[in-house]
This record gives sequence, C-alpha cells and structure tokens, in this order.
Amino acid sequence: MKTRTLAFLAALLAAAACAADPLPSWNDTGPKRAIIAFVDKVTTPGSPGYVPPAERIATFDNDGTLWAEQPVYFQFLYIADRVKALAPQHAEWQTEEPFASLLKGDFQRALAGGESAVVKLLAATHAGMTTDEFAATVSDWITTAKHPGTGRLLTDMVYQPMLELLAYLRANDFKTYIVSGGGIEFMRPWAERVYGIPPEQVIGSSGGLAYEIREGKPVIVKTPEIVLIDDKAGKPVGIQRHIGRRPIAAFGNSDGDLQMLQWTMAGSGSRFALYVHHTDAEREWAYDRKSHIGKLDLGLDEARAKGWTVVDMKRDWSRIHP
Amino acid sequence: MKTRTLAFLAALLAAAACAADPLPSWNDTGPKRAIIAFVDKVTTPGSPGYVPPAERIATFDNDGTLWAEQPVYFQFLYIADRVKALAPQHAEWQTEEPFASLLKGDFQRALAGGESAVVKLLAATHAGMTTDEFAATVSDWITTAKHPGTGRLLTDMVYQPMLELLAYLRANDFKTYIVSGGGIEFMRPWAERVYGIPPEQVIGSSGGLAYEIREGKPVIVKTPEIVLIDDKAGKPVGIQRHIGRRPIAAFGNSDGDLQMLQWTMAGSGSRFALYVHHTDAEREWAYDRKSHIGKLDLGLDEARAKGWTVVDMKRDWSRIHP
Repeated sequence: MKTRTLAFLAALLAAAACAADPLPSWNDTGPKRAIIAFVDKVTTPGSPGYVPPAERIATFDNDGTLWAEQPVYFQFLYIADRVKALAPQHAEWQTEEPFASLLKGDFQRALAGGESAVVKLLAATHAGMTTDEFAATVSDWITTAKHPGTGRLLTDMVYQPMLELLAYLRANDFKTYIVSGGGIEFMRPWAERVYGIPPEQVIGSSGGLAYEIREGKPVIVKTPEIVLIDDKAGKPVGIQRHIGRRPIAAFGNSDGDLQMLQWTMAGSGSRFALYVHHTDAEREWAYDRKSHIGKLDLGLDEARAKGWTVVDMKRDWSRIHP
Repeated sequence: MKTRTLAFLAALLAAAACAADPLPSWNDTGPKRAIIAFVDKVTTPGSPGYVPPAERIATFDNDGTLWAEQPVYFQFLYIADRVKALAPQHAEWQTEEPFASLLKGDFQRALAGGESAVVKLLAATHAGMTTDEFAATVSDWITTAKHPGTGRLLTDMVYQPMLELLAYLRANDFKTYIVSGGGIEFMRPWAERVYGIPPEQVIGSSGGLAYEIREGKPVIVKTPEIVLIDDKAGKPVGIQRHIGRRPIAAFGNSDGDLQMLQWTMAGSGSRFALYVHHTDAEREWAYDRKSHIGKLDLGLDEARAKGWTVVDMKRDWSRIHP
C-alpha cells in the first residue's frame, strides 16, 4: 500500500516535470527539438547515447551567445568608463593614443591602433590592482551600466532562451561553463547572479597574477602579462587547462567559437554543437559573414556541412531578452 | 500513519549518520576535534560562522598531504620509467645528462643539474604528444607502478585519514580541490578514481598546450613551455586562475604550501588551515626542517605562531594507508 502510494507520487512528479516546457522562449522548431532529443538521449540510462553525469560538460561562449555584443563588446564599455574615471590622474592621456580618442568618445579611432592599442587599454584598466579591488570595481559598475543603444542594463541584454537552456541542462546534471574571449576576471563577479555559473566554471582570456604581501596582508595582484587569449584555437586550450575533459555540448555564435565546437564534436559518444545565428535586425541585430564583431563565416559553412544545429534567432526564438 | 512512518525512517537515518564516525582513522585528539568543530560551524544555518555551500572550497596539496612523497616525488618515478621506455629511440641519452645517470638508476646525479635537468626531463617525457596520448600513458603506468621501498602500488600509498577527510568534507557540501606542485595532466587521469576528485578540480603545474588538426582530427598537443609552477607563491595564483574564489580550508605538509594556507586564512569568516607533519619514522617517514623533499620549516613556525592545526602523524592517525 505504502509502496503503491510512493510509486503514484513519483509518477505524478515525473508527469508534472514533463508537462512544464523547459524552453518556453524557444519556438517549436528544429533547434528546440534537437536540444531536447539530445538531452533525452544522454540522460536515458541504458540507451546507447547515455552519458554519465560527471561527463556532462557543456561550454558556452558569452558575447553574442549568452548576451548581446553589438555595437561593441560590453567589456569595451567598461574600459571606456574606467579610462574616463582614471583620466584625472593621467593628464598625459589627453594627448596620448588610444586614451585621447577614447576620452573624446571615438571608439573606432581608439581601436585603430589594433592589438597594441588594446594591450595599452587593458594594462591601464585591468592590471596594477588586486583581484579583490578589480572584482569590486566591476561589481559596482555592472549594477548600473547601461547599453548605449537600448538604454537597458547590460545584464538585461542577456538572451532569455539561453538562460532557459542553461537551467534545463543543469536540471539534467550538466555542468555549464562559460568559455569566452572576454576577461575571466571581468565575468566572474556577475556570472553567478546573471547566469547561475559560479566563478570556477568561468573560463576566459587571462592576464598575469602575482601573489604578494602588502601591509602584512596577502593579496593577488593583476599584472599586464597575457597568459591566455581564450579565442579561436585558445578555446580548446582554455577548456583543457581548466576542465581537463572534453565537453559533450558546445554553444557559440562566431568563428571565434569554431575550434571549441570542432573539439567538442570530435570526441566519441553523444555530442551536440549549436551556433546562434544573429538574423533578427528588428528585435536585435542581423550580422554574420561581414561583421567586424562576432563574424560568423567559416563556422556557418562548417555547421551546415556537418549538420550542426544553427539557431535562426528570428525564426527560432519567441523572445530575445528577459 | 504513512507520514509517521516516513518521519520515523528519516529520524533513523539521521541518527545513523550521526552515530557513524566520519573520521575513523583519526585518533580522538586535537586535529580531529578541530576539523569536526569547523565543519559543524560552517554548516549550521544561522550560526555566526555559517558559510553557504557555494563558498565551501577546500584545497589540498597532493605530495606528502594526500599520498607519500618519499624517497622521491612519485612523478619522478614516472619520468624515470618513461626515459627507460623511450631510450631505444634516443641513442644519445646513453651519454647525455640527465638521461645517462637516470638510465643508470642514479636519481641524485640526474637531478644534480638542477632546474635545467628537470626542464630537459619534462620536455622529453611530458611534451610532444597529445593530451589524450599522455593521459593514456599515465593511466596505463599508474595501474601497476609500485613504490621502490614498500613494493605497494603507488595508489595504495595514499593516506587513509585524508581519504576520510575528503569524503567527510564532500558529504558536507564542500568542493574539494587538489592544488599541487605536481603536473596537472599527470594527476588528472587517476585523481577521480583514487581521491574522488574530478579533473576540473585538479590544479597543478602546467605546461603549454596547442590546438592542432592532425590527419583531419582536432588534437591538443603538450608543448615544453612552462605556464604555471604551482608551488609556493604559485599556489594562490593557481587557485585564483582556476577557482576564482578564496578557499575557506586548506591542507598541506610543506613550505611549498605556506602561501596557499596564508591566502586561505587571510579571508573573512570561518577559516581552517592544517599542516600534516611527518613524524612517524616507523609506519611512514619522519622529516621536516632539513628534508630535501617536503621541507617544512617556515610553515611549522607560522602554523604554531598563528594557531593553525598541525597533525602529528604518529599521535593523531591510527592508520596511515588503506
């Protein structure tokens, strides 16, 4: 009698779990069906595609995959705001590039110097302070930082369908990771609150760190050295360094994610790769092969050739932001 | 009736859990009491020392803390065996140091060349293959590799009290990490089986990695470059890079762990630091301030000055190995 009651309760709970749509902001089109079929396959014990929970590693690009990336990577807005805030202590920046252009609000000109301009900006805004100080500054900034086009908080420019996907995978015992070209220490202070992803599951471009005793207290200081550029071929490297096993699912939106998707798909057993294709000029932005930011060219060809899942934002997502 | 039965069962289970000693190989002395008091404090909701599960990060040194390290670090036995196995393809090693001495079984002479000798040995045995190939070679080796003194499998030279401690912390929602001067890719293939610590929670000294396509297949190749020496001041750096938050508990046995313990103890809220002091010449080895391997000198002074927990192996552990 008791056994029957418990079995009935268990069946009821299972039915309720099935009835609730885990991906309500996804239209009932190919990508949603492919995701659900993949999750069903890897979580069904005894099925040939079954994957034990410990190996259910899913990696997500951030810019353009979890939140928007137009008209510039949001981390660049942070750099611009920091340069403005620090300018009073750096009179020389009024005439020295790339700072001078950035202070005039001319992003394009500031970045005309290419990699050396970026290195200078990162050294000025991302190094020379302790990791605790940097995290506090980012945390403060992100609570009020707004998008220059929409006026919304940057943390509201995340993609609702991807938040649902993260939660759905975690509910099925996946460990979800960010693997981004953005700065690891820039994402960690807010990734847990915004995405439910803890600091130890954030992988990103990384600068040098140095342990020191300052005024009798141990600190870790951020140095200008570049340790990992977590983009393109750097993504599988970051994954190996931090996770030490190959993901079974990977999600990106640009050619910078291609190697991560290749590496993921080249393993044995059940595998899943998905590209978010920005096709919605009305609700978001439409860009791919010719875009300066988030260029998706080689990746789109390879996805089509290999049958990877491609999200057509306009067609497949009923809602973009929360 | 049913509800009462379930409540009774739950109470019974809870009582059974309490009654079972979580640390049976620890004598009822200071260290065991300090560990249990700390865990009780951080897990009691509403207590001033409470720590939410997400922040329960515990880091463990490996050599000399989780398994033995005498008469040489066990990874060095791997290097010696690999040099022997690869020697037929390297006729020049018969006369070239440090290989020549190592092939004659003269460890001390092989290492007389200091850092440059170690770098040569690592380049010859830890680089130039893919991460998958390296992991397969280590996995094969570790299943049969025996200790030169005891003749036991190296994986049986782990400390039973520490295995119990790892399990006890995890049962209390701690995330347990290895933070070792040993090679990250050397430990990952067996850390999950031996310690219950998954690859993504293993931090160690790290070499370069390069993503490549070989014969149409993506691979990650190990390169001779040194990316992190995860020892001394490198340990807090490795922790920040991989975890991104400060541990609340740290466990070591040598001066190489001192900075990790300092960094852990310098945070706010509940904190715990423990040194394993090798005092048992009969059941294991006795060494500290003068030892070439696992030197514990500054750390022992600092532990005593600051009141950190120090395990006297002979007094505090009723059993050493499983």
